[in-house]
Amino acid sequence: MKILAIETSAKAASVCLCEDERLIAQSYQNSGLTHSQTVLPMCQSMLEHCGATLQEIDLIACAAGPGSFTGLRIGLSAAKGLAWSLEKPCCGVSTLEAMAWQMVQHRGEILCCMDARRSQVYNARFRSDGERLERLCEDRAISLAELFAELDGKNGQIIVGDGAELCYNYGRTLGAEQRLSPPHLRFQSAWGVARAALEQARAGQITDAQGLAANYIRLSQAERERLERARNRKGE
Amino acid sequence: MKILAIETSAKAASVCLCEDERLIAQSYQNSGLTHSQTVLPMCQSMLEHCGATLQEIDLIACAAGPGSFTGLRIGLSAAKGLAWSLEKPCCGVSTLEAMAWQMVQHRGEILCCMDARRSQVYNARFRSDGERLERLCEDRAISLAELFAELDGKNGQIIVGDGAELCYNYGRTLGAEQRLSPPHLRFQSAWGVARAALEQARAGQITDAQGLAANYIRLSQAERERLERARNRKGE
Repeated sequence: MKILAIETSAKAASVCLCEDERLIAQSYQNSGLTHSQTVLPMCQSMLEHCGATLQEIDLIACAAGPGSFTGLRIGLSAAKGLAWSLEKPCCGVSTLEAMAWQMVQHRGEILCCMDARRSQVYNARFRSDGERLERLCEDRAISLAELFAELDGKNGQIIVGDGAELCYNYGRTLGAEQRLSPPHLRFQSAWGVARAALEQARAGQITDAQGLAANYIRLSQAERERLERARNRKGE
Repeated sequence: MKILAIETSAKAASVCLCEDERLIAQSYQNSGLTHSQTVLPMCQSMLEHCGATLQEIDLIACAAGPGSFTGLRIGLSAAKGLAWSLEKPCCGVSTLEAMAWQMVQHRGEILCCMDARRSQVYNARFRSDGERLERLCEDRAISLAELFAELDGKNGQIIVGDGAELCYNYGRTLGAEQRLSPPHLRFQSAWGVARAALEQARAGQITDAQGLAANYIRLSQAERERLERARNRKGE
């Protein structure tokens, strides 16, 4: 199954083309440029460089969240546009599960952490046997204090994601001993998205352009402020 | 230090831009297209996508061998051309060391294997503590039989490179228990080249366009045949 995957959940952006687990081509950049400028040109030149066409793709996969609201919307919009115009099935995957796949060769627990600001991380925990992932909890927004309370002194996990250093440094202040994933595997990548999508496709969990939706986990700042204003008005 | 790295030692081709260990952008393809068609356009679009220019690069790194003679020559020629025209220092690194860096997070022994045909692999062995590599032997062409005789029943190594499956399958026939690196980290990549070049640059081992040279390890088929013809003539 040929999968085109898009990852724009944080500062880095990447796109890749896979045949099942096999990576045919990937283009990655973490330069700070806006994803809206980069993601479609990256797709286009990646396909050109490997002599592939959009028509031969069987599935369009995208990181659906959690992550940057703007980043996710750009990736999902690009995926929706491609899937709709090409009439291809698509698949939105957990950003946290996708990054766990990057570290699947690590036998043991994988802590996926994205910086969710406001002293929180978007987090999920996985256990790997070196080839398969077992999910230990749902995707969530959690404070570092709560996360480390839950780990309860258990050490040795490997931390991945754009919130990895944040989590690692917090752990160090408590005397905890996690390990940072190496710099070339630390950040989200499209390969992880394709790998997670392959699992979902094998389980029959695919959708179409219309069904592709973001999973923000938390309300956006605008929504939080609106709710707060509503609460304040009630209290007046 | 900004490093532009080129990897064309086998069927896959990749280029990347790093700031020290940090990967800024990478473009990878393993589609079977000729490197001479792909490597410079890949460089160009990668730099464009991340808003970088050739002028800001401090070091040009390239996989210098072992590997496909044609592949290495294409990569080295591209690196030499860039380094010469831009008057930048450059650095040729061991293809085997570069691929070991991809698995540096694996604490233990890393077996780097490239298919050298004629029942041989290009091989080197490394030990990683999770962050640093220790070289256990020089780069060499060795038969699988000799390699496994040397391993002497020792198991648990992780195998990386385009010869990983070949080596893994051979080991299985002997009852050996190595592990295959996961598919997204199995093949040579430019990030490994940049990482190995960073070590060499820190050790002051850099050169210029003129000094950049291939390390084929073995003679080319043409050279072997010429020597054989010379031997046969002597014996006539």
